[in-house]
Amino acid sequence: MTYTNVVIAGGGTLGSQIAYMSAYSGKNVTIWGRAEHSLESAKARVARWEKAVQAYFKSSDAQIADARKNLTYTTNLQEALKDADLVIEALPESIDVKKDFYEKFGQIADKKVVIASNSSTMLTSDLAKFVDRPEQFLNYHFANNIWQGNTAEIMPSAKTDPQLPATFVEFSHEIKMVPILINKEQPGYVLNSMLVPFLDSATDLWVNDIAQPQDIDKTWMIATGAPMGPFAIMDVVGMNTVYQINAAKKNPEAQKVAQKIKAMIDNNQIGVESGAGFYTYPNPEYKQADFLKG
Amino acid sequence: MTYTNVVIAGGGTLGSQIAYMSAYSGKNVTIWGRAEHSLESAKARVARWEKAVQAYFKSSDAQIADARKNLTYTTNLQEALKDADLVIEALPESIDVKKDFYEKFGQIADKKVVIASNSSTMLTSDLAKFVDRPEQFLNYHFANNIWQGNTAEIMPSAKTDPQLPATFVEFSHEIKMVPILINKEQPGYVLNSMLVPFLDSATDLWVNDIAQPQDIDKTWMIATGAPMGPFAIMDVVGMNTVYQINAAKKNPEAQKVAQKIKAMIDNNQIGVESGAGFYTYPNPEYKQADFLKG
Repeated sequence: MTYTNVVIAGGGTLGSQIAYMSAYSGKNVTIWGRAEHSLESAKARVARWEKAVQAYFKSSDAQIADARKNLTYTTNLQEALKDADLVIEALPESIDVKKDFYEKFGQIADKKVVIASNSSTMLTSDLAKFVDRPEQFLNYHFANNIWQGNTAEIMPSAKTDPQLPATFVEFSHEIKMVPILINKEQPGYVLNSMLVPFLDSATDLWVNDIAQPQDIDKTWMIATGAPMGPFAIMDVVGMNTVYQINAAKKNPEAQKVAQKIKAMIDNNQIGVESGAGFYTYPNPEYKQADFLKG
Repeated sequence: MTYTNVVIAGGGTLGSQIAYMSAYSGKNVTIWGRAEHSLESAKARVARWEKAVQAYFKSSDAQIADARKNLTYTTNLQEALKDADLVIEALPESIDVKKDFYEKFGQIADKKVVIASNSSTMLTSDLAKFVDRPEQFLNYHFANNIWQGNTAEIMPSAKTDPQLPATFVEFSHEIKMVPILINKEQPGYVLNSMLVPFLDSATDLWVNDIAQPQDIDKTWMIATGAPMGPFAIMDVVGMNTVYQINAAKKNPEAQKVAQKIKAMIDNNQIGVESGAGFYTYPNPEYKQADFLKG
């Protein structure tokens, strides 16, 4: 066993999922939130994850009840950090919010407490400068719906103790994750380092009017045996994220993509979430038996 | 029905597969080869495709016998082109070889005969200049093992009759292909326009020592539900092709990739074909039940 008492700072979508899977796996978990209303939202999310996890693992009601007993909620950081072994920071992607948290953490937490960030967009070294123990700090990045999309990307900075990643590999196994060890800092970790250029290549074909999204998806599905092509993946990711990624780039292709995606958003074609994106849901064309026939 | 009498120029791997699937689908097919020994090789290939197609479609012996009756072999171009409706050129990727063929074709073929090229690397307009009927010419690109990887990419040039692609869409259905209509010339068609940057992103992570191939593949498989990650795909594509693509590029990452792939080739790690690549075959680690568990 690695870490037993785990604190998750922030009970948003990812934070509450990490907390839930840790509790479900037998860890003592405290969700720390900045305000009472955040904790209420976190509890509502956990109630959804209970159902999703039970359906996914076919868990007994007793297993779900046990997991619930392992979860505590507090807005009191001092109380949360008492006896903590590991803190996973899953706060909003704001450098000020994170900096503020790390500074408070440093004032309160025992020197032995290990800390990690679930940040998607900030590098370990960007955050380590606010942490009083950079050798006991690394990025620990989860996907969404983590019971199913169960990668846990482990990214140390140059200052991280070289022994620490191996402990996170073990902890990942303990909470039913597949550890992905990243040797050096890499913006986008492993997944987004591949996903972004892949989606870019598909949207380039689309905005340059080379081929239709459905035909592009068919080509990828037939050639690689994948269950989804790039446009079906974008529907899952959601148009808001696809828009943000493209709007942030300066090249004319990305600007064209951002413009076309913006029009979709304005038309409430957000993706799976809104029931329509490149496909319509809940029965998208690409899942139909004859999609790959013609 | 679109084209009934089909000539395939060149009985290599792809040419013989296109010929076989056309014959299997009821077309009258002639394989034209430049020499008797090429035709003998083509016949040996067709014997393999008969077995593969029968296994794939669970065809009766009678269906296979019928297909065989639809296939003729000749080195006589005049004879091959008599009554032809469609010629698909599947000769080696040499501009001289193709130019020579198109010139002979133009001297012999009736004006109504439509012509297409299966070239992977040359654009329609690169070849159209040697064709006496550029309006009746387009690129028609197949994947390997076409009964299974059954995309048929249809790429016209600016000079192609705008009606022609629709006929190829229909013909593709007739020979059990999924037509992928490409509106404008695009180097790499649809598939390679996505596959190349995708594989590049994965090899960049590898040669920059960010993560291990197995972890990179796991990440992709878990996140997208795909049955293979990029390194498993490279094993199928084969290291010779991966080497060629990277060696042709000038950026330092691609040079590093080419060097590491060269070392694999020298060590007979060619991929699935040699029994070893990033994985070992016939039972690669990524297909094993516990691969995505840890």
